[in-house]
Amino acid sequence: MSLDPQIIRELEQIVGQPYCRTDQEARLTHSYDATPLFQAFPHAVVYPKSTEEVQAVMKVANRYRIPVISRGSGTNLSASAVPVNGGIVMVFNRMNRILEIDTRNLTATVQPGVITRDLHEAVSAHSLFYPPDPGSMSISTIGGNIAQGAGGLRGLKYGTTKDYVLGLEAVLANGEVIRTGGKLAKDVSGYDVTKLLVGSEGTLAIITEATLKLLPQPVFQQTMVAYFPELDLAAEAVSDIISSRIIPCTLEFMDQGTMEVVEAFTNIGLPTDQKAMLILEQDGPQEVVERDLEQMAEICRRLQATKIDIARTQKERGSLLEARRTALSALARSTPTTILEDATVPRASIPEMVRKISEISKKYNIRICTFGHAGDGNLHPTCMTDARNKEEIRRVHKAFDEIFETALKLGGTITGEHGVGLAKAPYMEKQWGKAGMELLKRIKEAFDPHHLLNPGKILRPSEEE
Amino acid sequence: MSLDPQIIRELEQIVGQPYCRTDQEARLTHSYDATPLFQAFPHAVVYPKSTEEVQAVMKVANRYRIPVISRGSGTNLSASAVPVNGGIVMVFNRMNRILEIDTRNLTATVQPGVITRDLHEAVSAHSLFYPPDPGSMSISTIGGNIAQGAGGLRGLKYGTTKDYVLGLEAVLANGEVIRTGGKLAKDVSGYDVTKLLVGSEGTLAIITEATLKLLPQPVFQQTMVAYFPELDLAAEAVSDIISSRIIPCTLEFMDQGTMEVVEAFTNIGLPTDQKAMLILEQDGPQEVVERDLEQMAEICRRLQATKIDIARTQKERGSLLEARRTALSALARSTPTTILEDATVPRASIPEMVRKISEISKKYNIRICTFGHAGDGNLHPTCMTDARNKEEIRRVHKAFDEIFETALKLGGTITGEHGVGLAKAPYMEKQWGKAGMELLKRIKEAFDPHHLLNPGKILRPSEEE
Repeated sequence: MSLDPQIIRELEQIVGQPYCRTDQEARLTHSYDATPLFQAFPHAVVYPKSTEEVQAVMKVANRYRIPVISRGSGTNLSASAVPVNGGIVMVFNRMNRILEIDTRNLTATVQPGVITRDLHEAVSAHSLFYPPDPGSMSISTIGGNIAQGAGGLRGLKYGTTKDYVLGLEAVLANGEVIRTGGKLAKDVSGYDVTKLLVGSEGTLAIITEATLKLLPQPVFQQTMVAYFPELDLAAEAVSDIISSRIIPCTLEFMDQGTMEVVEAFTNIGLPTDQKAMLILEQDGPQEVVERDLEQMAEICRRLQATKIDIARTQKERGSLLEARRTALSALARSTPTTILEDATVPRASIPEMVRKISEISKKYNIRICTFGHAGDGNLHPTCMTDARNKEEIRRVHKAFDEIFETALKLGGTITGEHGVGLAKAPYMEKQWGKAGMELLKRIKEAFDPHHLLNPGKILRPSEEE
Repeated sequence: MSLDPQIIRELEQIVGQPYCRTDQEARLTHSYDATPLFQAFPHAVVYPKSTEEVQAVMKVANRYRIPVISRGSGTNLSASAVPVNGGIVMVFNRMNRILEIDTRNLTATVQPGVITRDLHEAVSAHSLFYPPDPGSMSISTIGGNIAQGAGGLRGLKYGTTKDYVLGLEAVLANGEVIRTGGKLAKDVSGYDVTKLLVGSEGTLAIITEATLKLLPQPVFQQTMVAYFPELDLAAEAVSDIISSRIIPCTLEFMDQGTMEVVEAFTNIGLPTDQKAMLILEQDGPQEVVERDLEQMAEICRRLQATKIDIARTQKERGSLLEARRTALSALARSTPTTILEDATVPRASIPEMVRKISEISKKYNIRICTFGHAGDGNLHPTCMTDARNKEEIRRVHKAFDEIFETALKLGGTITGEHGVGLAKAPYMEKQWGKAGMELLKRIKEAFDPHHLLNPGKILRPSEEE
């Protein structure tokens, strides 16, 4: 399995010989992403330095009909970066400059390879704020966040990556460049290609630059944690907080199983005899933050919270949020295979969804820990399993089938923030129906008639042709 | 010019005989919208009552290859509802029910014919808030707002219609129905067809139901007005307020010409000897509102505002906002023809844009009054002219060409909130380039291969084929 040496020479001429790799190490490193159970080898890995190089590579790929899979840090959880048909993986870590922070228009313009946390820090130096904070933000790239439409812990109040992308530069499948949007609060000229590209997982175009919306940094933040003797009571608290018209910036949920694993990993003193915990954060003017926290505490008390703590220092606050952020890594270390999902439901249905996940886990006799962005209706039921146990893996798949069906029945989605990739593609038709799938396929072909851009993702091969 | 009687019979069978009209009155009434200088007659006007009727009409239209132009109240300002190739105008005033206000998930589900203000009032009864408030909201429909991606006076803080559409039901050109999104804070399953349909002006699909996001109603609001001795000073105040990190909910601008006409129309005592005024509103917790208003007043004073007034009563507040809302009607009554534009620039470029509009109006010796959503970078330079004066109209067109070019040079857009329709279609390629236009055309054809849905809008006929 290799590309014609002539094609390799053409690619080397474009990006420079050291930046076009076909060695086993490069191919292995880019054969998987953060999703378990998926792997496929690319033919080559290229590291372009500029939009012009991306264009030139794409033109070669288009001429020889070779798939191109654009990739940031590969932290996605839907096998969206796995080069299932081989081809060229295009890695963006050399296009990692913050091109401008515009403090008058409150925008940042960046190359796709910028690390999410680096952007946070750079804008924070100007007292500005870029809200999207996916779990993997210390290593994830902005380009990857855009391709996946990444969410995070602040989605409830601030929305997701999509809400912050104002404009894009992108290379099309034929190698041409388009520019959409700009530093604009409003723009209705033509179809919204900007938002269409967000979350399109590299299947429609390759993003080479993005203009992002920034907000003024909130002046005050406070973080609270509440522990509950029953799962249901925590879930009811989430639902009651939302319907009482408080919009906290963070409203995170962890069940007992997750708490145990996180505590073993971090040793921050979580009371692992409790059945569930909520992490609640509000930001804004101090008086508003304090009032909202008091109201949320009142709701938690009414629902029999056994303990409610307010973080007193930045350090305490940081360690609570880090505890939540480490949930996935902690779970991943404690078991050979962790399969994480992100079925999402209308927020008021969180109690029902939590109950159903628990029932399904019992029915199939598998171990599921659940945590997630409860305030967004976005839970991450995570199955602790072992890929070598084929029989158990079959039960895991059946359980997840049922979880997705439950989410859809409740008016939800098969994926709230992780994307479709390869992992969720089989479930798409259940959500979209036949007419919807046909339409998605035609949209794909409007951008990429030869199915060169990250083929097999979102739409399965049979649906693509 | 008429449809085959057999086709008319088929349409009558679907919607009922009284709801399929081919009489001269119905055809005339639907031959234009709120945009001056554009008119074309439809062959028939239908008034469906249900999604099933919309589907059935669309299937007939598809079979006979007849254009279908969906229409709310026809308040759009880009000739987006003018049936330029004839065909069937589909009016949604019989599909005008608010289907649900979900107070736990904070959503409303509506039919497209609901009047915008009716939705405001209905959700307000539950202490909820639907922010988009286009100028025409007393008669405009939600379906029309979605089709046009309508903005309004609260865009700066709250965004536009696009930011509130969570899910759609839509009928495709082949008569099939799709459902997108839902009552979900997050959804990344497949391409974002929801956002793609918002602002697509009925050229991609016919919207038959929408699920909208609601917010808790702000507890307090305050409105302030500031008058300036020079245009530039008011524009500088706008730019300084934004870059000082205050995000007011409303930041509206009117120049002297607009103030004179509005004062003649409303008699509320505007000081017409001043060169410009700003209307500034903030909402939220009382202490925050009062602090922001004081800071904005301070910026206005520093920029030599001659007078700053805070509305003391709801009535005073209402009359200030009404004054702004009547600007277009007032201008329209004072002259035979008013041509209104909505070129939009990055917010910090408002002072430069205001200066350029003034220079261009002098250069072409035409009368332009400017008002608009200054905080969004969205101005409405409005030309007071007379369509019968062909020579002047030629100068008006040249002046607007130059205004659009200026906006694009400043990193702006040819349309911030009015849409492309017929009126802006000639300017699209300047913004999108050749590769961009090709892509838009392919997106159109992915949805509507036979160009039946509102043909000639966004893309001109030559670009459509």
